[in-house]
Amino acid sequence: MGIKDHTKNKTREGNFFEDFYPGMVLTHATPRTISSGDQALYTALYGSRFAFSSSDEFARSLGFNRAPIDDFLAFHIVFGKTVADISLNAVANLGYAEGVFGVPLYPGDTVSTVSEVVGVKENSNGKTGVVYVRSTGCNQRGEMALEYVRWVMVRKREVGSPAPEVIVPDLSKGVTADSLSIPDELNLAEYDYTLSGSAYRWGDYNVGERIAHVDGMTIEEAEHQMATRLYQNTAKVHFNQHTESQGRFGRRLIYGGHVISIARALSFNGMENAFKVAAINGGTHVAPTFAEDTIYAWSEVLEKIELSGRDDVGALRVRLVAAKNNNCEDFPLKNSEGRYQDDVILDFDYTVLMPM
Amino acid sequence: MGIKDHTKNKTREGNFFEDFYPGMVLTHATPRTISSGDQALYTALYGSRFAFSSSDEFARSLGFNRAPIDDFLAFHIVFGKTVADISLNAVANLGYAEGVFGVPLYPGDTVSTVSEVVGVKENSNGKTGVVYVRSTGCNQRGEMALEYVRWVMVRKREVGSPAPEVIVPDLSKGVTADSLSIPDELNLAEYDYTLSGSAYRWGDYNVGERIAHVDGMTIEEAEHQMATRLYQNTAKVHFNQHTESQGRFGRRLIYGGHVISIARALSFNGMENAFKVAAINGGTHVAPTFAEDTIYAWSEVLEKIELSGRDDVGALRVRLVAAKNNNCEDFPLKNSEGRYQDDVILDFDYTVLMPM
Amino acid sequence: MGIKDHTKNKTREGNFFEDFYPGMVLTHATPRTISSGDQALYTALYGSRFAFSSSDEFARSLGFNRAPIDDFLAFHIVFGKTVADISLNAVANLGYAEGVFGVPLYPGDTVSTVSEVVGVKENSNGKTGVVYVRSTGCNQRGEMALEYVRWVMVRKREVGSPAPEVIVPDLSKGVTADSLSIPDELNLAEYDYTLSGSAYRWGDYNVGERIAHVDGMTIEEAEHQMATRLYQNTAKVHFNQHTESQGRFGRRLIYGGHVISIARALSFNGMENAFKVAAINGGTHVAPTFAEDTIYAWSEVLEKIELSGRDDVGALRVRLVAAKNNNCEDFPLKNSEGRYQDDVILDFDYTVLMPM
Repeated sequence: MGIKDHTKNKTREGNFFEDFYPGMVLTHATPRTISSGDQALYTALYGSRFAFSSSDEFARSLGFNRAPIDDFLAFHIVFGKTVADISLNAVANLGYAEGVFGVPLYPGDTVSTVSEVVGVKENSNGKTGVVYVRSTGCNQRGEMALEYVRWVMVRKREVGSPAPEVIVPDLSKGVTADSLSIPDELNLAEYDYTLSGSAYRWGDYNVGERIAHVDGMTIEEAEHQMATRLYQNTAKVHFNQHTESQGRFGRRLIYGGHVISIARALSFNGMENAFKVAAINGGTHVAPTFAEDTIYAWSEVLEKIELSGRDDVGALRVRLVAAKNNNCEDFPLKNSEGRYQDDVILDFDYTVLMPM
Repeated sequence: MGIKDHTKNKTREGNFFEDFYPGMVLTHATPRTISSGDQALYTALYGSRFAFSSSDEFARSLGFNRAPIDDFLAFHIVFGKTVADISLNAVANLGYAEGVFGVPLYPGDTVSTVSEVVGVKENSNGKTGVVYVRSTGCNQRGEMALEYVRWVMVRKREVGSPAPEVIVPDLSKGVTADSLSIPDELNLAEYDYTLSGSAYRWGDYNVGERIAHVDGMTIEEAEHQMATRLYQNTAKVHFNQHTESQGRFGRRLIYGGHVISIARALSFNGMENAFKVAAINGGTHVAPTFAEDTIYAWSEVLEKIELSGRDDVGALRVRLVAAKNNNCEDFPLKNSEGRYQDDVILDFDYTVLMPM
Repeated sequence: MGIKDHTKNKTREGNFFEDFYPGMVLTHATPRTISSGDQALYTALYGSRFAFSSSDEFARSLGFNRAPIDDFLAFHIVFGKTVADISLNAVANLGYAEGVFGVPLYPGDTVSTVSEVVGVKENSNGKTGVVYVRSTGCNQRGEMALEYVRWVMVRKREVGSPAPEVIVPDLSKGVTADSLSIPDELNLAEYDYTLSGSAYRWGDYNVGERIAHVDGMTIEEAEHQMATRLYQNTAKVHFNQHTESQGRFGRRLIYGGHVISIARALSFNGMENAFKVAAINGGTHVAPTFAEDTIYAWSEVLEKIELSGRDDVGALRVRLVAAKNNNCEDFPLKNSEGRYQDDVILDFDYTVLMPM
């Protein structure tokens, strides 16, 4: 064994497909205390303007002690911890399902993530397989802040090693109304539609309604790198131009979650009162994104959901689509053959809360 | 009505010239709780070294409970809220006047902004008009933190729509001494000239004195985008290379306030004890700035102002000029025909406090 | 005297070699209150994953009230204050020695730095000289947080001015075990090796062991500029492309400390439990670094240090080497003639604490 083997004794190469088995539990490293600095950076990276996570006073008017952090900042921090164990050897991040937001996270809270493998299925090429993982992020009191399933295509350590029994979880097509977690303290009686930026509320949106969110945002390398490091996401492809210059695209790939956050921030223009994300029903990163791309987004209302025992707040299930270098006025999605258009980069299905 | 009209039902296109009338009051969306994270980002963006906003201990030695945020960070946050309602369809930001800083802002304070239209004047081309607006930013107790007038050239929705009665406000040429707000708690008896970085105080500066601030700062796209989003300023021209590549300059334009903050930070070298901004007397963004430009600045003392009942603190009215790719050793300003030199980008007139 | 002289009356040009003399004490300007925003930015800039400075809960489990800021963030803030007085006219930052970390720094603490000149030695060319400085950074209670010696080559104001008596301090080759400051509150009984990311502890590392840290990080201009301004480091070469385009490299130089922080963050992969930096024994910035360079790092264990009266924690003296555009699998350092290889940029010698 030469020097190179010696050196690899203590470094981590991440798990390969053969390492995963259903029921395997991974407690991920590096708990993270969230600070108001994280939220400030999130604002600087995306320019989010939803009043609920921007203003302590606004959050107090809705029954909270202060403003929680942005829901997708919570998502990225929970997600980031899983990368070193789940997707360091991933070829692709294939999808999300059954994502539920629990207790809001506040500056001062400490987040940890635990994942359980819920399915494995080797690909017919014998080189890769799909791993299904349910990840749960909790605060320092062990309260669930976010839970979701994602599946990723992971390389095998050795081509031709034996394939495991196929287990594919039966994932729901969407989070049902009774699975949504509505914070107990939430009370929209004092909701201020001037400060929130729009008078449109739950009742004003219709199933099938589509909204092009007008604005576009160009991504810089420094921005997505800072974002992805903020989430302590260590996926190599986002940071290393030296290796990526020899890779498939010749460029660093942008973390897919960065695009979700841009699209969500852009969606403010037209959905100002979608003040909180309650669930992630599904989502696909359709195509890679690179620095200098300009991101636009559009939304379609998929479903209007009434919440049991609440007449002040309802939920909307929304498709959020992001495209690059296309202003989305024509709602780009799929072509006549059912394949995504070239400029579409994200097809996301989530549920937001809105005052009734 | 086609798809495009349908989609625009709920998005905001901003106000056009015809929408504004004197007396119109606009309560702007998205109140914002300031955090120490915002101040950290401000430091990272500009490198400001004024001890008063850098050190809680220094601020305490001057009678405050802790360091307030940088005055121009306060300005940008107050200003940012106005963009969606006032200047989304602006062709140019023409000027500032009657800017007065009130109570200092601290991490934890929540800022809201209300504007009143104080003048309208259609341009002779029938395509645009000038709108004068007085904007007031307050903290969560309704205390005025900043008030200023700005005027912008805004596009008309329809060329040829009737022109309104011309009303141009009678704006003062400068904020007078008795209009300056000196915080009650301010006491400069313990001011430390070693920690502040210079022994020069109010008495050492003379009217007509000019100071070239030596250093230069090159702007990157990621920096000005992060800054402008931090202020929740949504002006399209700063973020969207996809559209700007087809625009007048082929490039994203940098928010003028970003240049003000760079110039203020550079002015530390030579005006270290100008610890607080008290007023904005006027200001013009002379020319556009782009990424990769290197910004320099120089100052001229316009007036020395004694403050009633105070012998520990005085004010200086200062012209702050920024130029690009010119080290300002020759104090660039106007040419022999009275027009600004090509490299001048900012001509700003403000009032600072200094220990006597 | 013309306008240019007039303007330079109040600006600072920094000290030249002739201005320094042994025993000279410099109390540096601009005390700085650290915030959680600084730590958030530090995470966004480097992606550090050491649990001790990431999680308040983890720090509490080790006996602390909350997570201290990253040790090198403390270093950079202490260092940044010295630049305006020590190295504004430096040609090169030559080395470090006798660096000891004292009390941890927390958000809310205010840092000030004082330096004493401990040696001067003119170079034979008569144009420059080496200045040795001991700098001490303290919190608001005057407790030492960091002390270190560095030496820099500084330009003379006038070539041919008389050379001072040569005084070169007798610097130790390494910080000894009894000089290390182990926080009183530290107790590793509850140290969680799952949350920290690795089971390897002090006893698992051997003298001579070398670890290539796998990952690489590409630097962007916006990133190193934001970092360096965050530390209020005003060295011109990092920020001014207008002058640097005419300089020796044609480019902005990256602050050497930025590379230290990248290398330390990369070292997590293979040294996850090196939870705290205790000392800087020495270090050399071997070659300049520029934007677009990709940084890799490797470590070698130089010494295993037992700490008096402690059986829960030990120290490792480690060589940390950074190289650019070289993945470090071959441990690049010096060539057969004893000169550093072209791609090596940092040769750093520091001491870390690790659970036993």
